[in-house]
Amino acid sequence: MPERGSTLAERDGDAALIPAPVPEDRPPAWPHRHLLDTDVLTWPQIELVLDTADVMGEVVARRRPRSDALRGVGVTNLFYEASTRTRVSFEVAAKHLSADVVNVSVSGSSIEKGESLLDTVRTLASLGARVLVMRHATSGAPYLVAREFAGSVINAGDGRHAHPTQALLDLYTLQRHVPGGSLRGRKVVILGDVLHSRVARSNLWTLTAAGADVWLCGPATLLRGFEAWAAAGVGGERRFTVTSDIDAALRDADAVMALRLQQERMAAGLLPSLHEYAERFGLTAERLRLAREDCLVMHPGPMNEGVEIAPDVAAGPRSLVTEQVANGVAIRMAVLSLLTSVGLRGEG
Amino acid sequence: MPERGSTLAERDGDAALIPAPVPEDRPPAWPHRHLLDTDVLTWPQIELVLDTADVMGEVVARRRPRSDALRGVGVTNLFYEASTRTRVSFEVAAKHLSADVVNVSVSGSSIEKGESLLDTVRTLASLGARVLVMRHATSGAPYLVAREFAGSVINAGDGRHAHPTQALLDLYTLQRHVPGGSLRGRKVVILGDVLHSRVARSNLWTLTAAGADVWLCGPATLLRGFEAWAAAGVGGERRFTVTSDIDAALRDADAVMALRLQQERMAAGLLPSLHEYAERFGLTAERLRLAREDCLVMHPGPMNEGVEIAPDVAAGPRSLVTEQVANGVAIRMAVLSLLTSVGLRGEG
Amino acid sequence: MPERGSTLAERDGDAALIPAPVPEDRPPAWPHRHLLDTDVLTWPQIELVLDTADVMGEVVARRRPRSDALRGVGVTNLFYEASTRTRVSFEVAAKHLSADVVNVSVSGSSIEKGESLLDTVRTLASLGARVLVMRHATSGAPYLVAREFAGSVINAGDGRHAHPTQALLDLYTLQRHVPGGSLRGRKVVILGDVLHSRVARSNLWTLTAAGADVWLCGPATLLRGFEAWAAAGVGGERRFTVTSDIDAALRDADAVMALRLQQERMAAGLLPSLHEYAERFGLTAERLRLAREDCLVMHPGPMNEGVEIAPDVAAGPRSLVTEQVANGVAIRMAVLSLLTSVGLRGEG
Repeated sequence: MPERGSTLAERDGDAALIPAPVPEDRPPAWPHRHLLDTDVLTWPQIELVLDTADVMGEVVARRRPRSDALRGVGVTNLFYEASTRTRVSFEVAAKHLSADVVNVSVSGSSIEKGESLLDTVRTLASLGARVLVMRHATSGAPYLVAREFAGSVINAGDGRHAHPTQALLDLYTLQRHVPGGSLRGRKVVILGDVLHSRVARSNLWTLTAAGADVWLCGPATLLRGFEAWAAAGVGGERRFTVTSDIDAALRDADAVMALRLQQERMAAGLLPSLHEYAERFGLTAERLRLAREDCLVMHPGPMNEGVEIAPDVAAGPRSLVTEQVANGVAIRMAVLSLLTSVGLRGEG
Repeated sequence: MPERGSTLAERDGDAALIPAPVPEDRPPAWPHRHLLDTDVLTWPQIELVLDTADVMGEVVARRRPRSDALRGVGVTNLFYEASTRTRVSFEVAAKHLSADVVNVSVSGSSIEKGESLLDTVRTLASLGARVLVMRHATSGAPYLVAREFAGSVINAGDGRHAHPTQALLDLYTLQRHVPGGSLRGRKVVILGDVLHSRVARSNLWTLTAAGADVWLCGPATLLRGFEAWAAAGVGGERRFTVTSDIDAALRDADAVMALRLQQERMAAGLLPSLHEYAERFGLTAERLRLAREDCLVMHPGPMNEGVEIAPDVAAGPRSLVTEQVANGVAIRMAVLSLLTSVGLRGEG
Repeated sequence: MPERGSTLAERDGDAALIPAPVPEDRPPAWPHRHLLDTDVLTWPQIELVLDTADVMGEVVARRRPRSDALRGVGVTNLFYEASTRTRVSFEVAAKHLSADVVNVSVSGSSIEKGESLLDTVRTLASLGARVLVMRHATSGAPYLVAREFAGSVINAGDGRHAHPTQALLDLYTLQRHVPGGSLRGRKVVILGDVLHSRVARSNLWTLTAAGADVWLCGPATLLRGFEAWAAAGVGGERRFTVTSDIDAALRDADAVMALRLQQERMAAGLLPSLHEYAERFGLTAERLRLAREDCLVMHPGPMNEGVEIAPDVAAGPRSLVTEQVANGVAIRMAVLSLLTSVGLRGEG
């Protein structure tokens, strides 16, 4: 870990956690005003997020988990889709940083009146939102918003497109448990409904950037289009493997990430039945024996236990599911802090 | 602007923003414990709100927008109708004043169980609500509540009756942009579904009190009853004009306020079609050429762009829509501060 | 009242309100980490809650009702059923103690996605919840959660089973108004839909522990099973009376607690009609004449006025309904403070 993190950690309890100014003779370590996906993050930038999350983790562990970093900064959670964990995670993260948090969800808001997304965002900006954390069913919606919004936009999930803070917390959690702390050359399997998963897409960028040997595995109908991407490579170079052969995927894996199966998919004729899916692609203890003995198990939640993951695997000794959620708070604190430090400098 | 505002502004950052005590030999400048409509406000009282909003605007503009004025005061937002902007605006305003804010909306509350409005209000009072910000579909509901509630009631919209903070922020916004800062003799047009608009009703009181030449314009079916009111005069004396002739209304106007068209009205047979409405009464750039060159454009939001207002007009250089929202926070801070200063003195 | 309460009250305004350490030669006065029902509370423990509520009542009465007792402690309200008063009461209580409060309700959360209760709770724990206040339609659900959750669980109502803070606030309110401050030998009537009432069940434990002469009264169909319990005695010894004879029940009563009639019961064929129910079991002024002249009237709310209680009785001089709600905040502050003091000591 670089010195930056340690330096921040040594500061006084409630002091600002915003990274120190970057010397003028090199580009700022963190140039982004928005976090819409992980595809634009360089590896040093990803490391900066993870290192900052280390510092934030120390704040979270305090008896009183509170820093002054975002005091006076308005953070608005704008959720057009139901969410417990992501909304609460951002809310807790922002409050730990002393931000002023406002929650807006679809039900009970004038969004029901058919107000347009951009009109809503302009309104929230005028009401003091400096950071907009948004979830929307339409892929790309946060990009539209970021073009208009003067503050920072964090994509908390847009359709099947991206969920960048999830990918960052997944990487952070993995690195803390992989021997040596690096994913370079490690086999990481993303298993399940890849086609509809924003989690899978955002993880592809960060995991391949970390040098992992990424395998995507699921029914052929839920992998459509990924073979072409695999052939082209992530970022035009970083290769990964796509297969429906779950045994090949799991063999000697260092980590497996099971994806939530959206049960709505069945209706669309993409899957025969829940039972058959669980039989063929569910992550069971028996199947996990193909992987390395210390293979790590992850799931972005919420889980359909007994479908994409067996209950004993989800709760087993290799499972990082609970830690993923806990790390999410530190990661989101890091992202909030980095984005607003750019916003305050007027860059980006 | 009177000295009062400046005096307040000069005080220490987080000091109380409650106006200084009024000398005993004249009536208190602000005698109201509730704000149910603008009809009871004298012109000096309206000016006091606007001047206090100036001070509050300085608080909002701080790096840390926070005053201690309402520290320890419970403010409850009780919304029986969906709302984003108004609920968030009051929530932000109250938090800027360090109040303890509780949000109660219809969905997810026991209001679903058929609890009566007054029983709910008594409960919220017992739970510590000192200010009740309420929105209700029934005209007059806040008056019923104010008779029972020991604290202050702010009407955040009741049926088609009143929305006083909206009218105050509209007036505040207009005065900041009209040359000379006064509406006296200025032609202000309220355009659209006047019949169902609480915004129009509350604005009629404040705009005529400010000396504006107010015109109400819309389809005859959406102006019913206003001709009689115009003949009688607002407050029995202040005249205004009612017409369905949009060209006459817009000619040489200094400001136009387009109203939201509730699409439910079509079902009631009051309108032929959205398309025809937009054709005949939509505020377009072409139509706006009839008005003065510097004619200001307003809308209380949320907008049906392409219906009552054209997108290029809504986003155009004369549009004050975004500033209306921003000023709403300062106006609501002013109202919260004035009402509770009365409540604390035990008057009203 | 024991000295403990006074000692706490004498401390500095914002000092911690956690009870002083208990000498090692006797069991801790408050050994419980969770509050799932009142059945496990000894009488000294019940008294400790009520005495602590006295102290908390002094905090509530301050101009700025705030203590530091739970600063940095995450309190999550997880409500699977609609609620205004209980959710707001816990939210206000936790905020008065400076806790970090998160609200999660069914609508607008991923609970809609079919996430399991335990998965949700694990997630909330990982997000920092130290106290979980939960309401659930299934009797016993909080017990399941308490087995998994490392912090404290407060049952805010589970199906028809228990609602312990309601029973404690009812007892607290009664004791403050009964002459002499003790319920020993006082006749207390619980009237109405006893069968489906978690309030009645939890009150049975506390009222009989206080030595009251408890009578349960309602239609025979809504008392099923309680005769057997009455014969066995609460806790195997404390007797109470079950009857459908409302005149016998009310005769010389010191207090009557009317229960909310869930209108859904009619559909189940348990009741003939609302009208007939009101006729036979509604608490009217005329019926109340059978009771003692100073008979106290209570209702856990929300009330169906005109059904289980007449409006003039609900609002009458003997009614404690409003005070019940107000006392609920102090009781919940006491419970939050006591439970977390155990949690911090690592006991329970």
